[in-house]
Amino acid sequence: MRAVDIIMKKRGGPANQGGSELNREEIEFLVGGYVAGTIPDYQVSSWLMSVFFNGMTFAETGILTDVMLKSGKTIDLSGIEGPFVDKHSTGGVGDKISLPLAPIVAAAGVKVPMMSGRALGHTGGTLDKLESITGYRTGLSVAEFCEYITKTGFAMTGQTKEIVPADRLLYALRDVTGTVESVPLITASILSKKVAEGADALVFDVKCGTGAFMKNIDDAESLAQSLAGTGKAMGKRVVALITNMSEPLGNKVGNFLEIEESMDVLEGKGPSDVTELTLTFAAWMIVLGGKAKTFDEGRSLAQSVIASGRAMELFMENVKLQGGDPEKLIADRGKRRSPHHAELRATADGYIETIEAFQTGLAGVYLGVGRNRTDEAVCPEAGMIIYRHKGDKVTKGELIMDVYGKDGPSLEPAIELLTKAVRYSNIKPANDTLIYKEISAL
Amino acid sequence: MRAVDIIMKKRGGPANQGGSELNREEIEFLVGGYVAGTIPDYQVSSWLMSVFFNGMTFAETGILTDVMLKSGKTIDLSGIEGPFVDKHSTGGVGDKISLPLAPIVAAAGVKVPMMSGRALGHTGGTLDKLESITGYRTGLSVAEFCEYITKTGFAMTGQTKEIVPADRLLYALRDVTGTVESVPLITASILSKKVAEGADALVFDVKCGTGAFMKNIDDAESLAQSLAGTGKAMGKRVVALITNMSEPLGNKVGNFLEIEESMDVLEGKGPSDVTELTLTFAAWMIVLGGKAKTFDEGRSLAQSVIASGRAMELFMENVKLQGGDPEKLIADRGKRRSPHHAELRATADGYIETIEAFQTGLAGVYLGVGRNRTDEAVCPEAGMIIYRHKGDKVTKGELIMDVYGKDGPSLEPAIELLTKAVRYSNIKPANDTLIYKEISAL
Repeated sequence: MRAVDIIMKKRGGPANQGGSELNREEIEFLVGGYVAGTIPDYQVSSWLMSVFFNGMTFAETGILTDVMLKSGKTIDLSGIEGPFVDKHSTGGVGDKISLPLAPIVAAAGVKVPMMSGRALGHTGGTLDKLESITGYRTGLSVAEFCEYITKTGFAMTGQTKEIVPADRLLYALRDVTGTVESVPLITASILSKKVAEGADALVFDVKCGTGAFMKNIDDAESLAQSLAGTGKAMGKRVVALITNMSEPLGNKVGNFLEIEESMDVLEGKGPSDVTELTLTFAAWMIVLGGKAKTFDEGRSLAQSVIASGRAMELFMENVKLQGGDPEKLIADRGKRRSPHHAELRATADGYIETIEAFQTGLAGVYLGVGRNRTDEAVCPEAGMIIYRHKGDKVTKGELIMDVYGKDGPSLEPAIELLTKAVRYSNIKPANDTLIYKEISAL
Repeated sequence: MRAVDIIMKKRGGPANQGGSELNREEIEFLVGGYVAGTIPDYQVSSWLMSVFFNGMTFAETGILTDVMLKSGKTIDLSGIEGPFVDKHSTGGVGDKISLPLAPIVAAAGVKVPMMSGRALGHTGGTLDKLESITGYRTGLSVAEFCEYITKTGFAMTGQTKEIVPADRLLYALRDVTGTVESVPLITASILSKKVAEGADALVFDVKCGTGAFMKNIDDAESLAQSLAGTGKAMGKRVVALITNMSEPLGNKVGNFLEIEESMDVLEGKGPSDVTELTLTFAAWMIVLGGKAKTFDEGRSLAQSVIASGRAMELFMENVKLQGGDPEKLIADRGKRRSPHHAELRATADGYIETIEAFQTGLAGVYLGVGRNRTDEAVCPEAGMIIYRHKGDKVTKGELIMDVYGKDGPSLEPAIELLTKAVRYSNIKPANDTLIYKEISAL
């Protein structure tokens, strides 16, 4: 077997006649060989580019996912009683859904082994938000991860180096060879990590809009279809929802600020968009975990564990288990803000036509909510509190946002971006759709 | 400037929307940087694959050609009186056209600075054929090359390491990354070397058929158009002919055997297909060199330098100048054969439907006419003398070919391949077209 023949099989004939599906042996030879150091990066990069152009079938993507998965260790949850259902979001601005979601679903009797990522570019990261809770540790050992799932039904951790090393290698190569934006490669990257965690079923939040990786509904749908189809090919039940990421979610964008808003949701008083998305994903996870027969039943169960306070109890138990200080968290709530503060006020009379999510996210990077490079630190107290949203009528000079920066100089570029992000109109804009589409493979 | 941005520009958007034309600065950054060692091979290979899929405009291919050209030295012919016209063939079986062509065109007053290649795979190589003349040297210094052109109007040499080093680097990478079969990349590879020789105008023999690199007329035409269009973009006048390579050319396939047949052409008694192609290319080269106004005038001039014996004289002078032994050549002619001999006889009564060129060429590799790897030696005395051709009526047992091998064991696999290559039919096949199409950019 020669790598060049596998590349040409995927590439297809000279006149772009389209390539062929690769089999397990071929993908194992190429990708397994790359991880083992027997296949050079220049062959893998030309293969990645041929995948960009010719795509992969769901079966083929499933094989790639499996080969990547097997490049490292997987989490063994066999000692814990299931079912295990996890959720993944492709990332957005103000997207704190995972934080209230995990304790709600756990309270409904479905175990949630959640491995999350960090903020990068304009999108936030669940781990950074959790670490804004004083003392909270996200680098759990496998033993701790399993112990906490056993105790409270969920645990929150980062990906360890031993999990899917092939993904780190391939992602680093894709990043410099123009092969990031490929649906099957994105699918395999996401799924390999999720499957390595040991979940039986998965829900995906495929964000769509200016603040998302997928800018339009066609691209988002093709990723959602690929995640569902490939997940099914790997024996997992999958529900993928395409959701709106044109405006930031909720009233708070930041790290500690989003912890606060998550607690609001757990107390039944969260913003309507964050609450609705949380309940919808919770409903699906409860159904996939077999604790409800229908979506509506799942949604009711989610609402009841909020109303009973059980979900909030589990959240606070988890904070304590993972090293956080619950008393300080309660004391900080609503008060912990950076001293570097500015106000964003309306520059016109009229309706807010949009608060554009991408620019809002970029402003967050300046403020210290997010980061441009993986080695940068974030600021727990930075962020934005948004008082007026798309469709709200405002008067010139009215307060739109409180803005908190990691330091004084960070405020000016952030305010400049946010001033551009907020646009005004004389006409009231139509309401946004929150959930565009549901794609499932059960 | 970042390599990844250049790759993505050529690659185009996520949904295969097609890439954009690169400018000189970008191609220089990527390809110049690769040669200089500042751009890694894994970025060049993903760019090569995006070129495979999205192609290049003629202007863009011209820039790539120029950047490759400038990676090394070029031949300075300014001390010699021109015009200079060269010819390149994409390679075939029994394709000895360059050998009689150069002295004919030189005899007509057009200088031919010819740099040729070696046999590889099923196709023969001009340098290997020339070196079958005892003593003949093809590794000329630039000074020798210029001196011999001044003396006899042409010279025959191999490419030195100093000429277009970018082509060797890129070709080696293309060979292992599945990016060989790309028309703009093939064009830049061919043209960069031809332009480095200093020719003012170029003719191309784009072979088409089973024995050629381009198997069908569409692929051949797209290469011919690219060679002509890119050559023109670089300020060269170009004529490209698409010619038939379904059957071996002429009656002799081998190294010394093809020298013999070339001498037959120079004496006006060559096989009709070889003679016709030689006269056609000679006519175009004479026209491009300004020594005739029309194709017909050029063809007549070519015929007259054959009839006068002047072309043959120049051939023999060149043999002597490049170290060959003219007396031994004359003595060897018609006699120098390998002692390892076999006969291929007709296995059926009827018409020869085809002598398939690719399999005939592969048989030549076994016999020692060609080679599989660039470091293998060839055998001067090996080859095939073909007595019966496509369309000839034969009787079972009749002699089709004399076959000469480098050693005894080479004969059996060659005969096996040749037996498959020769196919019979009860119906007389239609005559082949020798020249399919002419494409020029003047």
